[in-house]
Amino acid sequence: MLHAVIMAGGAGTRFWPASRGDRPKQLLSLVADTTLVRATFDRVAALVGPDRVWVVTAAALARATAAELPELAPGRLLVEPVGRDTAACAGYACHALAAVDAEAVAVFLPADHVIGDEDRFRATLAAGAGHVERHGGLLTFGIRPTRPETGFGYLEVGAAAELAAGPPVHHLARFVEKPDEATARGYLEHGGYLWNAGIFAWRATDFLAEVARQLPLLAAGLERLAAALGRGDEAAVLAAVYPTLPRISLDFGVMEGAERCWVLPADFPWSDVGSWPALREVLPADRAGNVVRGRVVALDCAEVVAVSDGPVLSVVGVAGLIVVATADGVLVTAADQAQRVKDVVAAIKERGWDEVL
Amino acid sequence: MLHAVIMAGGAGTRFWPASRGDRPKQLLSLVADTTLVRATFDRVAALVGPDRVWVVTAAALARATAAELPELAPGRLLVEPVGRDTAACAGYACHALAAVDAEAVAVFLPADHVIGDEDRFRATLAAGAGHVERHGGLLTFGIRPTRPETGFGYLEVGAAAELAAGPPVHHLARFVEKPDEATARGYLEHGGYLWNAGIFAWRATDFLAEVARQLPLLAAGLERLAAALGRGDEAAVLAAVYPTLPRISLDFGVMEGAERCWVLPADFPWSDVGSWPALREVLPADRAGNVVRGRVVALDCAEVVAVSDGPVLSVVGVAGLIVVATADGVLVTAADQAQRVKDVVAAIKERGWDEVL
Repeated sequence: MLHAVIMAGGAGTRFWPASRGDRPKQLLSLVADTTLVRATFDRVAALVGPDRVWVVTAAALARATAAELPELAPGRLLVEPVGRDTAACAGYACHALAAVDAEAVAVFLPADHVIGDEDRFRATLAAGAGHVERHGGLLTFGIRPTRPETGFGYLEVGAAAELAAGPPVHHLARFVEKPDEATARGYLEHGGYLWNAGIFAWRATDFLAEVARQLPLLAAGLERLAAALGRGDEAAVLAAVYPTLPRISLDFGVMEGAERCWVLPADFPWSDVGSWPALREVLPADRAGNVVRGRVVALDCAEVVAVSDGPVLSVVGVAGLIVVATADGVLVTAADQAQRVKDVVAAIKERGWDEVL
Repeated sequence: MLHAVIMAGGAGTRFWPASRGDRPKQLLSLVADTTLVRATFDRVAALVGPDRVWVVTAAALARATAAELPELAPGRLLVEPVGRDTAACAGYACHALAAVDAEAVAVFLPADHVIGDEDRFRATLAAGAGHVERHGGLLTFGIRPTRPETGFGYLEVGAAAELAAGPPVHHLARFVEKPDEATARGYLEHGGYLWNAGIFAWRATDFLAEVARQLPLLAAGLERLAAALGRGDEAAVLAAVYPTLPRISLDFGVMEGAERCWVLPADFPWSDVGSWPALREVLPADRAGNVVRGRVVALDCAEVVAVSDGPVLSVVGVAGLIVVATADGVLVTAADQAQRVKDVVAAIKERGWDEVL
């Protein structure tokens, strides 16, 4: 059966002041009335059925995540006691999947992305899942670049899989780290490179076999977790073992060295909404290029992103600004300085105003 | 005896979002930990004694004003049921003064100004009050201009009073409405003009005599109020009579036509703090010209005024902005557009978000 695993453990400060330690990006309603994790759940539940949606999250977010997804089936919320990167996360989920469905095939995806054409999204995921069900191996979905983006990793596309039928799957040549601007321009012009969106598909047992082959230490730890699944001491074993798992990403740690590693190009509109300025990619703008959400009065503004989750926010006579207002935190930044939110958060910590972080 | 009357009935929207309908500028702590009306009270109480400080305010502000000035002597808070401009306000106060002290001399002053050198301020007020005590007439204090300000009315200085001793009092030639920039430059260069700060001194009975001579309708209404002072029906008479009083300013309605009208040049540092950008006149700036109050993190900013009365406010990579944050209202405006706060308030009203006004 086809399952979906939503990776919802992300923290981060890039959406301060909306995001907080206990309310990271996936729990925010950045682009619609629903949170990103809620929208992700609904999007994949329509493909695999709500009973086969799984969510992996962090201990600090477990309660809020469960509250956001009340129909999540019992046992489908997997809680990592501590973060150990994506190889451990996916491995833990694959053991949980295999324990209830030995033939489980699953798509893995982040909780905090925005997808434009959900039907095409589901059709693409179904095609990729069908491929790994028939042919085995690990598959990643690659988004066709629409701009010379330097903020993403890329996938270098290899030879086409020589198959009589099915979707246009290719071998994956390699994962590429974030490129510089000239390199990114080359990728866009010459083709052959896709954005790494962190969306994957594989049979759970195939992933675990690759972990066992390439990462024996991780595999041994995961086996201890697997043995405890459903037992009375599951939580205690999780708490004891999880912190000992090696930190490694599934991209470089598992997929790149896998015996069969596929990539399926994807054309659905996609954004990882990586920062406040990225709201411009996914929300409509007025004629002056302003994007507003919440109770906002914008007078004589241009290219402004103005977001309020409560306060009445007024912006007058400015251009190229990001303005975000909450009841206890406000950010005003030049759009091209928005990455400095991390410095803001550091300064707030230094001043001892941690209650707004 | 010398008294002081603080005119504290002002409303207005220029300090939104800090100011609200029930919390106008004089009740804000714009430049220090104390409110402007509190600072004004302390400043004049040191001159006349706390028992001889009077405050006139509006019905909607009476409770908040009394709470801010708990030591205000009983009967010293005069509450206007409705606003009827400054001639009525001062006339009402003069009757109340005369009722307790037939020889009362008083300085009248706004509740919401910032004064830099309080000793010089008090010495100047004492000198002006001494002059009217000895020579009668109505006196206004004029601030020597330090810039070609077009936002104030001016006082045209007439001939020097020919007196053997006392402060350098002049006859007042006339009140001048806000000038255009060229005219204001001329005033600054050629001298002979002072800023009208709305600070006055006179014997209460002298002011009332001028009202009787020039504004008989107002005088008649004020006589009805005076007759009821201290009676059981004082509040009822006030409520019935006050709305019938003519609306006229004391500058043009009483002083300009007075038989003896004086002006005393004043040199104490003074600001009416008329808008958010004016905070630059009265608060220290950092080396980049930023003025901040409250929990503010400013990174790579220049010439920014950033004020928070609670939220942590972060401003990054911008210049020439005014940013003001409260829990339920936020303003971000180019400094040279700050007068558009009134348009913001109108837009908020239009959208029905009146609870933040």
